[in-house]
Amino acid sequence: MSVKVDSCVSPTKPCEEQTPVEEYFFEGAEKLLELWFGNRNAKTGSLRLIPRYELDAMLDIARCKVLQSAHTGHIDSYVLSESSLFVSERRLILKTCGSTRLLAALPIIIELAKSYGGFDEVVSVYYSRKNFLRPDLQPEEHRSFDAEVEYLDGFFHDGHAYCMGSLKQDCWYLYTYHVPQPVTKVADHTLEILMTDLDEDVLHTFTKDACENGKDCTERAGINRIVPKGTVIHEELFEPCGYSMNAFLPDSDHYATIHVTPEKEFSFASFETNQDLVCLYKQTKEVLNCFRPGKLLMTVFANDGSSKGRDAQQQLWDRELPGYKRTNVQFVRLETETLVYAHFVRKDGTESSSDEDDGALSE
Amino acid sequence: MSVKVDSCVSPTKPCEEQTPVEEYFFEGAEKLLELWFGNRNAKTGSLRLIPRYELDAMLDIARCKVLQSAHTGHIDSYVLSESSLFVSERRLILKTCGSTRLLAALPIIIELAKSYGGFDEVVSVYYSRKNFLRPDLQPEEHRSFDAEVEYLDGFFHDGHAYCMGSLKQDCWYLYTYHVPQPVTKVADHTLEILMTDLDEDVLHTFTKDACENGKDCTERAGINRIVPKGTVIHEELFEPCGYSMNAFLPDSDHYATIHVTPEKEFSFASFETNQDLVCLYKQTKEVLNCFRPGKLLMTVFANDGSSKGRDAQQQLWDRELPGYKRTNVQFVRLETETLVYAHFVRKDGTESSSDEDDGALSE
Repeated sequence: MSVKVDSCVSPTKPCEEQTPVEEYFFEGAEKLLELWFGNRNAKTGSLRLIPRYELDAMLDIARCKVLQSAHTGHIDSYVLSESSLFVSERRLILKTCGSTRLLAALPIIIELAKSYGGFDEVVSVYYSRKNFLRPDLQPEEHRSFDAEVEYLDGFFHDGHAYCMGSLKQDCWYLYTYHVPQPVTKVADHTLEILMTDLDEDVLHTFTKDACENGKDCTERAGINRIVPKGTVIHEELFEPCGYSMNAFLPDSDHYATIHVTPEKEFSFASFETNQDLVCLYKQTKEVLNCFRPGKLLMTVFANDGSSKGRDAQQQLWDRELPGYKRTNVQFVRLETETLVYAHFVRKDGTESSSDEDDGALSE
Repeated sequence: MSVKVDSCVSPTKPCEEQTPVEEYFFEGAEKLLELWFGNRNAKTGSLRLIPRYELDAMLDIARCKVLQSAHTGHIDSYVLSESSLFVSERRLILKTCGSTRLLAALPIIIELAKSYGGFDEVVSVYYSRKNFLRPDLQPEEHRSFDAEVEYLDGFFHDGHAYCMGSLKQDCWYLYTYHVPQPVTKVADHTLEILMTDLDEDVLHTFTKDACENGKDCTERAGINRIVPKGTVIHEELFEPCGYSMNAFLPDSDHYATIHVTPEKEFSFASFETNQDLVCLYKQTKEVLNCFRPGKLLMTVFANDGSSKGRDAQQQLWDRELPGYKRTNVQFVRLETETLVYAHFVRKDGTESSSDEDDGALSE
């Protein structure tokens, strides 16, 4: 295994350049794009052949930049000024928070995959996000899910668009597309946990007041307990607060990523992984122990080959999470896999009232 | 059993008074409201004590009227100029199509349930509908689901709002509310099938050209094969086309109802039942044999006590319907029951292209 970690840009708090409004606000909830590529002639190719300066130019369009990069034989991992980028042979995952313009980068990515990667088609697309707290602060193409769907439809013929959860509280939007005869993928699953109203004691850990640097923060927050043993972590602690980490397992394209917006008024943390070493349900409980959110939503995608993913889906459907009341759970059969969406509220009762103030119908 | 059927208003095609627009159009898709009532002092009461003239005044507000009524020991069944009304002891079901103002009748119903029925609270609410083909032709409060949710929130604290299915094709909206400590209900389930693009040969049956009257139409269309043996049917064939039927089983509050809009340009048929005599999955296949829709969406609600409902949900999740491709299926755990939503497209391939023209994002 060869792992190379570079910290190439001095970290600055991503939100500083994005808040021309009176009251300070940062949208922690990310836009998440996962693309799988293929070519009709079944020749091989690799997204990892795209040169770094081209990735940088693409990220410029999305309005974020690389802070750190790390590389193994299977994956290129980038910690960004706003979240993360993972590039493996056929899959690219771009996750950006704040008021970034993620979708503006889509045509560039497709072009780079063609020119350098040798791929002539996008075989699978997943674009998803939680409802924004402040959609009015987003760039125009991200201000509503309808607008995002319209934009994506310009690239993909016959994609599907869903809204999971109660439209009146937190909800989660998903756009998916697959080529009509989907390529049989290997066993695959993705777990994502999006958390709000984090415990105040937890929030302080993710500040420069409490921790010296990212490594220090990872340890104090107990984040090493979340990821499987043997995981390599590279992370960033922002000035004056905020945290991002990318993690990967040495001998596969398995990754994990965590992003924390620790301001009390709009606290947010996300966890995402495709690892298959430890039970996803148990891992979820570790994540909740770490962040103690007032509310959370979870999604688990799993295809037929993924028994770990299927197990996690079944547990989410059958069981509650300790200390949390499940307010919603939905099981969806998609074209090439199944998806479980669930929403939880902490049981101590202090959060239930805040639900009413969400005003999630605003978008 | 005592069954009394009155035909009290001469049938006129409901849409004639509703089309001030150039091109003739009728919105077959119904708005559906199901309300369950209770009282905090656990005294008995009955919605069936509401006098007929009060129901008529309530329906006036909703912009429809009674064409036929029938009464058993358990249920009052009304065929309306636009769909149906069923009143049993604690449950009222109002289903109205066209450009009716169903929700405008809600405060009247609540008031009548109090004054005459002796009920001081609504214990369960289900408001649902398919996406409209022409939302612009609806009265203001029904023009978008957001508007409907806002209206319903004026009556019920902490209701939930969902959108099932792909937002880009047919989808189905649901608003539910239950009192915080739900009354334990008896075994209950509801199957609804909403069909569009009906087979042209089928459409002709539901016209005065083909059939003399409602009874004739029921027989020729094979509708008696859909309902369990022993079901009493009262029906209406509209001039020049269109069909409505209410059916009920003698010794329970079980009902079935079918409404058909047979114009080729915007054909629509709906089936709804809570019967527990025959397998719901088999009954669904009978309904499809009868109407041969190009597209359909189905919902099955079932509470813990309903094994028939649970079986139908599991079959919908596990199996395809013969001759149809399932494009979407979702399993949802609600507060007091589960719900399965599924969408199907006929396999002969002629419908898939029409999907793209739906423009369902318009609302």
